[in-house]
Amino acid sequence: MSDRLVEFRRRREALNAKILARENVNIKRFFAIDGAVYRAGALDGKTKELLGLVASTVLRCDDCITYHLIRCAEEGVADAEMDEALAVALTVGGSITIPHLRRAYDLWDDLHPAA
Amino acid sequence: MSDRLVEFRRRREALNAKILARENVNIKRFFAIDGAVYRAGALDGKTKELLGLVASTVLRCDDCITYHLIRCAEEGVADAEMDEALAVALTVGGSITIPHLRRAYDLWDDLHPAA
Amino acid sequence: MSDRLVEFRRRREALNAKILARENVNIKRFFAIDGAVYRAGALDGKTKELLGLVASTVLRCDDCITYHLIRCAEEGVADAEMDEALAVALTVGGSITIPHLRRAYDLWDDLHPAA
Amino acid sequence: MSDRLVEFRRRREALNAKILARENVNIKRFFAIDGAVYRAGALDGKTKELLGLVASTVLRCDDCITYHLIRCAEEGVADAEMDEALAVALTVGGSITIPHLRRAYDLWDDLHPAA
Amino acid sequence: MSDRLVEFRRRREALNAKILARENVNIKRFFAIDGAVYRAGALDGKTKELLGLVASTVLRCDDCITYHLIRCAEEGVADAEMDEALAVALTVGGSITIPHLRRAYDLWDDLHPAA
Amino acid sequence: MSDRLVEFRRRREALNAKILARENVNIKRFFAIDGAVYRAGALDGKTKELLGLVASTVLRCDDCITYHLIRCAEEGVADAEMDEALAVALTVGGSITIPHLRRAYDLWDDLHPAA
Repeated sequence: MSDRLVEFRRRREALNAKILARENVNIKRFFAIDGAVYRAGALDGKTKELLGLVASTVLRCDDCITYHLIRCAEEGVADAEMDEALAVALTVGGSITIPHLRRAYDLWDDLHPAA
Repeated sequence: MSDRLVEFRRRREALNAKILARENVNIKRFFAIDGAVYRAGALDGKTKELLGLVASTVLRCDDCITYHLIRCAEEGVADAEMDEALAVALTVGGSITIPHLRRAYDLWDDLHPAA
Repeated sequence: MSDRLVEFRRRREALNAKILARENVNIKRFFAIDGAVYRAGALDGKTKELLGLVASTVLRCDDCITYHLIRCAEEGVADAEMDEALAVALTVGGSITIPHLRRAYDLWDDLHPAA
Repeated sequence: MSDRLVEFRRRREALNAKILARENVNIKRFFAIDGAVYRAGALDGKTKELLGLVASTVLRCDDCITYHLIRCAEEGVADAEMDEALAVALTVGGSITIPHLRRAYDLWDDLHPAA
Repeated sequence: MSDRLVEFRRRREALNAKILARENVNIKRFFAIDGAVYRAGALDGKTKELLGLVASTVLRCDDCITYHLIRCAEEGVADAEMDEALAVALTVGGSITIPHLRRAYDLWDDLHPAA
Repeated sequence: MSDRLVEFRRRREALNAKILARENVNIKRFFAIDGAVYRAGALDGKTKELLGLVASTVLRCDDCITYHLIRCAEEGVADAEMDEALAVALTVGGSITIPHLRRAYDLWDDLHPAA
């Protein structure tokens, strides 16, 4: 994983730990759900990560997109699958999502270099 | 299909025809893309409809949700798959999506009555 | 309570029951949090309902606004407090929230008739 | 003007009057700005109404779109100008705006019947 | 106040001055309202800052969140009050707000170090 | 053009090239529409860039705002026209757009220094 993705992951985990250290029961429960909904069930893990990625793209959250890109790579999403998922996001969300697509593809290159 | 879904489809098609009759080339091209991105390719049609459904739910568009629910039923999405996709949408999009989940499940009952 | 608010509440509860009957564990947990965060704690119930109302207004969800208006009336929110909370929402969210303010004040009249 | 547009205008004005009767100074000032920004200045009234229409479309507010459509008709916006403005909105805002375009063109027919 | 918050405040004020120097009457009036709605009235200043914070969080604007965090600290918001307000925002706005919560809690530590 | 705007343009073009190199037909068609809708037609290029700018501002996308500011300067938008367009965006979109207005005016100074 590239340095910038390692650093993203480190900072994300450090700040999550800071939030959970507050010991607010509802915030902790929310984080538990946020982990659970992506676990394989009736839908497999790959499909769920693509759902998370497309939702994050149309809502235009770079950190969320970065996280789901990492998870999509771990779940074995192929290049053409990534393209088709992002084409759905672009069509639904419009050109306002393009700056996020630019950054998403730039990171995807780190995760999934072309052969 | 229930009367309300038949009426939804009729009105949607009538108004789409009205838009396309304007003969604006860019709007027509956009509609062409909007059809094409959901066609099976590297990702199958069912996965793409679920992506469209989740995107529509987090962006909170009832007409878009209704359309993708109809298409999900046609693609054979099972009850538990629908639940897991909507659980992702609810978690990403928050309680503000709940009124849309209420209407989505009410329509899903029309499309997919419990055995 | 006016007929339209009684009907709103009846339909909301019927559809919530339909969602919970699906027995999806993550959706059920989310609904539990959604109830818990508005309960009095370090902040009192009235303040929390105003937070919910303003969040719902800037995100422009009529059903959410209606629900929090009912709860604000139950918590004893005064007319001038309602005005000041909605003035914050209008300023943060812009004129795009005005149609929701129109409907909110129309319902507030049902809940809180001027003396 | 068609019956539904007359009714839209009547209800909009009645509810605006209800809001202003609250005598909240900040809400009243906001409404004053909301009138003033569309008045002709360095940009003419027609351009400003198109700006309001496109902003309302990408933010997906039907009441706001309806209001600006009425004003665009009053300012003499031609059919092809309307098409090009809505094509910008559709491209920026994505397919999630299409249900609003459907309703917008349906109302535009009331305001601007084809020759 | 930490260096990064001092720098945030300095830059915010410099750019606000640049906007107001344009002498556009409607923008100036908007800025006047934006100051006025948070002043204590029927609701106290602390409640209003919490409303502004929650609205900013569900709309996902880091600069707005940072500003209201500073003001919340000045108004004497306690740690547990902050947690409960942000739990409302997280529930209403969903996991898409989590990156903003991470940054909010990181700044809150600068403003409100644990005893 | 200032160094930061030259760098913005360079990076934007490099990442657009990376996206288009994917050879996804729907993404390529979307980019074609995104160029076409701003070309002069029934509405002139200046009006269309102002529509794009206001849409980008109410949707709060800094990269999109930066791009349309550059194009507005190229189309000869005058200072007072910029002010009036941004006043519409601020009114429609609310105070949540102010951080974007700060950055927009800061860049406009690079593009359009006061005499």
